[in-house]
Amino acid sequence: MSERSRPRCSDGSLNITGCRMLLAPMCDNYVEVILEAIKNTNTDRVWKHTDSLGTLFRGQQLDVLKAVKELFLNAYKEDLHMVASLTFSKGCPGDVEADYLENIEALKSLPKHPLEDVECEATISFYSFGNMEYMDHIHRVIDIFKQMGVYSNKSHYSTILKGSVKEVFEAYNQALSYGFNNLSHYVVETNISVNSPSNKKEK
Amino acid sequence: MSERSRPRCSDGSLNITGCRMLLAPMCDNYVEVILEAIKNTNTDRVWKHTDSLGTLFRGQQLDVLKAVKELFLNAYKEDLHMVASLTFSKGCPGDVEADYLENIEALKSLPKHPLEDVECEATISFYSFGNMEYMDHIHRVIDIFKQMGVYSNKSHYSTILKGSVKEVFEAYNQALSYGFNNLSHYVVETNISVNSPSNKKEK
Repeated sequence: MSERSRPRCSDGSLNITGCRMLLAPMCDNYVEVILEAIKNTNTDRVWKHTDSLGTLFRGQQLDVLKAVKELFLNAYKEDLHMVASLTFSKGCPGDVEADYLENIEALKSLPKHPLEDVECEATISFYSFGNMEYMDHIHRVIDIFKQMGVYSNKSHYSTILKGSVKEVFEAYNQALSYGFNNLSHYVVETNISVNSPSNKKEK
Repeated sequence: MSERSRPRCSDGSLNITGCRMLLAPMCDNYVEVILEAIKNTNTDRVWKHTDSLGTLFRGQQLDVLKAVKELFLNAYKEDLHMVASLTFSKGCPGDVEADYLENIEALKSLPKHPLEDVECEATISFYSFGNMEYMDHIHRVIDIFKQMGVYSNKSHYSTILKGSVKEVFEAYNQALSYGFNNLSHYVVETNISVNSPSNKKEK
């Protein structure tokens, strides 16, 4: 295998972002919904592994976001309440030499999906490790969400985002980019939800 | 309000652990399942708040664990695949002066639940902040899981636990106690799952 062809960061480490995704469509035929969504999701640009607790994607940041967004929206159905629990991570020590894909040219932006304008909401927490200024980093990421217009309100342990799926995934992208540019090891923990009956009552 | 009656840590901070819980029963009547489970859960010993993205519990560590475990098991049904995404947190700066309950005498252990012997599995990540030895703390918590017999295997970004719901909640309790004894700000992120059809195929 050619060392040169693997995507690398400036410090020589492999440039791999990962995500563990747990998808929970709240309906009797959830197995069918999940399997159909997986079948229709193009994962050629990422390493993936499915177990009984979800699916892992690993690859370049935009490719991982693309796979997660596609899988989520491919499962979307009008009036189906669905949540996904997502753990994005980069830079965990000991993680860099693992699964990667070679010769994947970088995407320039997150590709569109036909359903990306549907409304969603999400809890999100931005964690960074091995530094004393982690609260400053959290505040800067929250400022990014405010500038993007997806910030809804604060809550204990996380921030609430509201917007289209397109906007919320772009917020994930910006949070991960902030981490990439400023930190060595960071995690984005988020639960995204569509079609919550709690919100319908408010209408 | 009496300052003296609030539970406090040795450093004077309020001794409050919190949890955000998102419960996802994968069935058409999930609203009924969730509301019924909430109705049957005794939350007298914790502060709680429900929004469209889940329920927050805050209080003493064992009381929060008791409320989460009760709510999860009160929603349990044979053959119903259900997951819960849980964020346990303690020590976030700025968090200490918020919601608390007065005059709650500490529990000595996590109370039993009639369904606590059902099998489950979980992903779990232990995060600590504002220190340079966070990986050492992770390894020590994983060692605790191994000693308890709930460690199943490692995965990217988290550890997989398997055991009864009783055992896995006791593992959460031990991880939080490790944090309480050694760290100022720590988070346990976990997704717990029962009745996954993936596991049935393996039988």
